[in-house]
Amino acid sequence: MMQTPAHTTGSTFSEIAAKLAATAKSLHASGWLSGTSGNLSAVVQTKPLLLAMSPSGVDKGELTAEQVLLVDEGARVINGGAKPSDEALLHLEIVKQRQAGAVLHTHSIWNTILSDMFADEHGVAIEGYEMLKGLEGVRTHEHREWLPIIGNSQDMRELAATIRAVLVEHLNAHGLLLNKHGLYSWGKDLREAKRHIEILEFLLEARGRTLQLRSRGN
Amino acid sequence: MMQTPAHTTGSTFSEIAAKLAATAKSLHASGWLSGTSGNLSAVVQTKPLLLAMSPSGVDKGELTAEQVLLVDEGARVINGGAKPSDEALLHLEIVKQRQAGAVLHTHSIWNTILSDMFADEHGVAIEGYEMLKGLEGVRTHEHREWLPIIGNSQDMRELAATIRAVLVEHLNAHGLLLNKHGLYSWGKDLREAKRHIEILEFLLEARGRTLQLRSRGN
Amino acid sequence: MMQTPAHTTGSTFSEIAAKLAATAKSLHASGWLSGTSGNLSAVVQTKPLLLAMSPSGVDKGELTAEQVLLVDEGARVINGGAKPSDEALLHLEIVKQRQAGAVLHTHSIWNTILSDMFADEHGVAIEGYEMLKGLEGVRTHEHREWLPIIGNSQDMRELAATIRAVLVEHLNAHGLLLNKHGLYSWGKDLREAKRHIEILEFLLEARGRTLQLRSRGN
Amino acid sequence: MMQTPAHTTGSTFSEIAAKLAATAKSLHASGWLSGTSGNLSAVVQTKPLLLAMSPSGVDKGELTAEQVLLVDEGARVINGGAKPSDEALLHLEIVKQRQAGAVLHTHSIWNTILSDMFADEHGVAIEGYEMLKGLEGVRTHEHREWLPIIGNSQDMRELAATIRAVLVEHLNAHGLLLNKHGLYSWGKDLREAKRHIEILEFLLEARGRTLQLRSRGN
Repeated sequence: MMQTPAHTTGSTFSEIAAKLAATAKSLHASGWLSGTSGNLSAVVQTKPLLLAMSPSGVDKGELTAEQVLLVDEGARVINGGAKPSDEALLHLEIVKQRQAGAVLHTHSIWNTILSDMFADEHGVAIEGYEMLKGLEGVRTHEHREWLPIIGNSQDMRELAATIRAVLVEHLNAHGLLLNKHGLYSWGKDLREAKRHIEILEFLLEARGRTLQLRSRGN
Repeated sequence: MMQTPAHTTGSTFSEIAAKLAATAKSLHASGWLSGTSGNLSAVVQTKPLLLAMSPSGVDKGELTAEQVLLVDEGARVINGGAKPSDEALLHLEIVKQRQAGAVLHTHSIWNTILSDMFADEHGVAIEGYEMLKGLEGVRTHEHREWLPIIGNSQDMRELAATIRAVLVEHLNAHGLLLNKHGLYSWGKDLREAKRHIEILEFLLEARGRTLQLRSRGN
Repeated sequence: MMQTPAHTTGSTFSEIAAKLAATAKSLHASGWLSGTSGNLSAVVQTKPLLLAMSPSGVDKGELTAEQVLLVDEGARVINGGAKPSDEALLHLEIVKQRQAGAVLHTHSIWNTILSDMFADEHGVAIEGYEMLKGLEGVRTHEHREWLPIIGNSQDMRELAATIRAVLVEHLNAHGLLLNKHGLYSWGKDLREAKRHIEILEFLLEARGRTLQLRSRGN
Repeated sequence: MMQTPAHTTGSTFSEIAAKLAATAKSLHASGWLSGTSGNLSAVVQTKPLLLAMSPSGVDKGELTAEQVLLVDEGARVINGGAKPSDEALLHLEIVKQRQAGAVLHTHSIWNTILSDMFADEHGVAIEGYEMLKGLEGVRTHEHREWLPIIGNSQDMRELAATIRAVLVEHLNAHGLLLNKHGLYSWGKDLREAKRHIEILEFLLEARGRTLQLRSRGN
């Protein structure tokens, strides 16, 4: 099946699994995947859709390429016996809505705090930072990025449907937050998705710390 | 004695000591064991109870498997000449009350601060975070974790008795705080105990930083 | 051309490129170049002026000496096919105004926040810290460093002209901030420029955190 | 001279220089010696007094044992041609007053901030933390550590005299702060001095962050 796919990414599953493990190690070192939290995926082929995905419950600082799972568009595991993340359906939804080649989900202190702080506004705006130019398609710092915030749920089908609606409504969003849960971002490949995550994490921290300072009336 | 125990963990003392040293290195790198603070233990066999335990006064970033002590249920050292942690009795109490396979004790900035800030309430509640799902037995973010806070003492027998009472009263607690001292957590093995520590440290930091932000009236 | 220059730094391009890559790795590890942000340059020869410069859009934690570009005083690439940073003109302007041997540009959380907080004052003063003595020419902590803040722009010629005017007006400044963008500093070589960046980043963080604490009325 | 000293530490200069370089690397990794700041010393022999000391202006993350200087009790360099730290006289004063075997001086964000915040009170009290037990001679958390704060100066003889008076007045102090400058601590050897620095840095950060939180009226 995987030797002659009609639509592929040009990389083998092993190559993608190795990159996924390296990305996990890097994000873990930043402190955004602690306590086995977070998950990562990358498209291996598009028709039919196959995703390389991190398994559930593994310390992401120790994830090896051999542990990476291959799942189909129904979130069923094709290879190996491990369980994929509960959130596989969310990854698949994002891949479909954004034609993404990779999806990353991090649990950082600052994305957790801001997803809580701005929950009532259903999103947080990040505006006027040079760093925004690192997001695909953004050409100037005079950009307003709206990161939608979605209520958390353990019903993955319901959550996937909500994510679909939010992505359709906010066509320019480069990421989304789940309330008191974490950040999702994506890109055409793992490299771009990682860049987006790093930029959004940076901006959320800058935004949060600025709020603290502004409290003195500056 | 240790070749044919009636009840063992299936691992040799050397294997457990090596895992304990690796866990110490990882927690030290997170900044939670600085200045020789903190201690770690893991069950080697249960009947009679024998614990692998970090020695007192050692830099945990440099702890080797060879330095790990073997102590009995009276906190007496079976091998080697080094002194176990003063807090060996607390580890033993937790092992007995929770049938734990490993106990970890960290001194982080945020667990120290929150143990002080919420001392008058005798505990701190952590509620509604997805990260809570990483705690054993928790299936949804709609969970309220109560971390009891116990007054600090240098009388280890008294402190062990207090811990016993608190663990009996709060049967679902995954950790406890000593006031202006640190965090204890545990698990069925070192891997699970480390996951619990990482999750509780993350949540205490998120809780503490959220308090700072909330002070501006958001 | 580069074998017999009239005015050189005494180092070959390869040597400078290797030092530039090492400096990038160090600053990236400090978290000041995340998401492919920031850029670095060092003078290879002065007449005519040639700069070693980091390419655009590269993860600075993975920058190799082979990827470092050689650009002329018009910001044209002499070797290789990659694109130099959009901000090459700003590096060149600083090199000319300050006779600098190296220019570094970082995006840190604290330089971003303070460039925003003090934008209306067109600069931030840092005064009375021993750490200031590490800036070239400063002999006592009784020094007042004024870091000018310039409005951000995507018009690099306009921005270069503004930087020129600001550097002429503030002849003793060791760095400058672009609003919600980042910090520029420089030195006679990469070693000195790196020292300046580390000192200014330290002082901006100390200044920012002191503002937070002062808000309680101390 | 150094082969048969009347009073030695039992270690050769090379052994001590290697330990000093390793200690520098560790403290630098904690972010307490950035921008070539800070300095370290250790006693090689006592009669006459000879100190191993870090040279001035060197990146402490790259300090090698070969770069470590040997200085006499007048702060004159015995070996090599490099310049010792301007603060050599302060190290010598502390060695004499405390019979210390090693002296460490760090520039951290939190020691800088608290040395400023509490300057008018001429010291900062740290009380009731378990972490205090890691300071030599302290047996319980029910201890009040007073860290004296001294006004900064570039006159090293004057500063040394002030330090002498402060150490005589506060015989139990394990460290002292220079205003907007940094922390000094010491111990019977490099290992103990490093433990003291780590503990005091931890407690200053916990103290500072607690002040921030208390501002909300808790």
